[in-house]
Amino acid sequence: VTYLRVKIDGKMKDFRTIWMENSVVKMIDQTKLPYKFEIFTSKDHHETARAIKNMVVRGAPAIGAAGAYGTVQATIEATKTSSFDKTLKKYVNELKNTRPTAVDLFHAIDRVLDQVRNGTTNGEWIELARNEADEIVRESVYACKRIGEYGNKLIKNGYKILTHCNAGWLACVDWGTALAPIYVAHRSGKDVFVFVDETRPRLQGAKLTAWELEQECIPYAIIADNAAGYYMQKREIDMVIVGADRVTVDGSVTNKIGTYEKAVVAKENGIPFYVAVPMSTLDFDITRDEIKIEERSGNEVLYVYGINHREKFNEVRIAPSKSKALNPAFDITPSEFITSFITEKGIFKPNELKKLKRKKSEMISTC
Amino acid sequence: VTYLRVKIDGKMKDFRTIWMENSVVKMIDQTKLPYKFEIFTSKDHHETARAIKNMVVRGAPAIGAAGAYGTVQATIEATKTSSFDKTLKKYVNELKNTRPTAVDLFHAIDRVLDQVRNGTTNGEWIELARNEADEIVRESVYACKRIGEYGNKLIKNGYKILTHCNAGWLACVDWGTALAPIYVAHRSGKDVFVFVDETRPRLQGAKLTAWELEQECIPYAIIADNAAGYYMQKREIDMVIVGADRVTVDGSVTNKIGTYEKAVVAKENGIPFYVAVPMSTLDFDITRDEIKIEERSGNEVLYVYGINHREKFNEVRIAPSKSKALNPAFDITPSEFITSFITEKGIFKPNELKKLKRKKSEMISTC
Repeated sequence: VTYLRVKIDGKMKDFRTIWMENSVVKMIDQTKLPYKFEIFTSKDHHETARAIKNMVVRGAPAIGAAGAYGTVQATIEATKTSSFDKTLKKYVNELKNTRPTAVDLFHAIDRVLDQVRNGTTNGEWIELARNEADEIVRESVYACKRIGEYGNKLIKNGYKILTHCNAGWLACVDWGTALAPIYVAHRSGKDVFVFVDETRPRLQGAKLTAWELEQECIPYAIIADNAAGYYMQKREIDMVIVGADRVTVDGSVTNKIGTYEKAVVAKENGIPFYVAVPMSTLDFDITRDEIKIEERSGNEVLYVYGINHREKFNEVRIAPSKSKALNPAFDITPSEFITSFITEKGIFKPNELKKLKRKKSEMISTC
Repeated sequence: VTYLRVKIDGKMKDFRTIWMENSVVKMIDQTKLPYKFEIFTSKDHHETARAIKNMVVRGAPAIGAAGAYGTVQATIEATKTSSFDKTLKKYVNELKNTRPTAVDLFHAIDRVLDQVRNGTTNGEWIELARNEADEIVRESVYACKRIGEYGNKLIKNGYKILTHCNAGWLACVDWGTALAPIYVAHRSGKDVFVFVDETRPRLQGAKLTAWELEQECIPYAIIADNAAGYYMQKREIDMVIVGADRVTVDGSVTNKIGTYEKAVVAKENGIPFYVAVPMSTLDFDITRDEIKIEERSGNEVLYVYGINHREKFNEVRIAPSKSKALNPAFDITPSEFITSFITEKGIFKPNELKKLKRKKSEMISTC
């Protein structure tokens, strides 16, 4: 068992991004990072749903874990009502209606529900739900660790690596996807340097990836998203690694807005572009044209949240008071811009994804 | 004579970005926009140099005008010392050492100095400097207006146009470069919509371009720089127009960081990418490899400046307290990504720039 290591008041402590204690879900509050390290306690499925929606927890695999644990909470709560099935369905829909793009959320919830259906008593329902949620989390941590080991093989000593958004510990239960290979490389003694796209509008790069790299003492620099192309053009970036919220069978990658631009510019400059994903992020049921891109509030662009010189939380407006903004949260990068996928089953070219379809169903059926 | 129109307390007033009254240079304080409309008064060359450095005035043609007026101030001040030539040289170097990338600054200062050399008395020196500075400003306004008229021919009714950074009125003395065609199109009755890249790290798009478009009542939306590719991929952008700080004879464009990424993604999607520049921005003396890219403080990335909910100026930190950032202010877009240049002499393909070299020397010699 591995845990992410967090420096708190100068001491190393072990944490995971999200875990469950009895009927309570606990998670690192990612809206407070990098300023404060706080644990958010969610006492029921309703609070868990709200935490997903408000991005207290975010990142595809972490959202999956939150969905799984939230479904356990929903199951526990539903046993206390007179209509278990109807109530559970209603509660679960609340969990599903939080964020539309990450497939892990729906996969995880459905896996727990499928197990619950095998039960006949309150006790069985709860136990089956809890066991399946724990299994999803175990698989997730294992998958991320394997992604790190496979990805490490691609990283040479001295590499400078660009990443976009946060696909680290905080986006998963542990290790991360895009950052896992960097952690494994660094722990194995390789020199690495990370260019961290700040990742507007929510600044997950500047806030979360930078914070994670600080914990691991990995050298890095934050850059404006606009500067990634500059460093690629100057050959100061050896490879790009990003995560993904959804990968379709044609090899298209739905990920944080801006990923598409970075991939196009990487290809133009002959820089390899890797997408690190657990198998749970592969969605073979739909094509890329069916993916619904979440449009978030324009206020996320117009207001920037941080702490001021008095170390107090504050929000500043960066535009005229009447301005409107458009804010798509994700974009889709076609397979032609992707060098390879780094998964827990190995490294695959986009056109090899089809054969993973079989492997994936094997994996799920045997877990 | 045209002037940019500013709504102040509900009334339209005419302004230019920068002008001179006796020995005082006045300019719209662009560090206060879009929150407050204030005129910054610079009483000597030293304050003018600091205003350029601190981006009270910014944008290649506006910096050129500031450099010209600052040189008039330096000339006036030097006449009051015992060593005119030596002092003038020292003062002018202070003006030149403010921002290294925009060629207009150096061109404008040298043009004024060349005229001053023709004088022999204090009175002549000052008059020659002032006349040449006024001429530079006249040419700049005329050039921007012509750029608007030529560029307007490329804009069809209903066009959605992406722009990066601010190359409008505020970047020039009047009209703008990239925005001039949009203003001419809108005033001639065409429907246009502008996607405004917020333009991190300094947010000139969200702060200045949005403010200008508000004054002209042109519909627009601010987007995170990361979202430009998304809208290009969806074919919601018909054309891109940007300005430039320097264009070399091979057709390479030095402009605000992020321009290169937008140009690469535009080409990938078959969207025309135009660069609007006055001839004064063409630099035929150097190649693109000799261009010095300004590296600005990483704090411009790590801290975001705006106003809080009490309408007070505030600055928030968006990263861990120990984080470092890299902050190149410009990038270089090779000619292969540029559809055409929109200049006051007409519209030219990158490989036609060489013939402008002759036209340019003609223009300067006859002005």
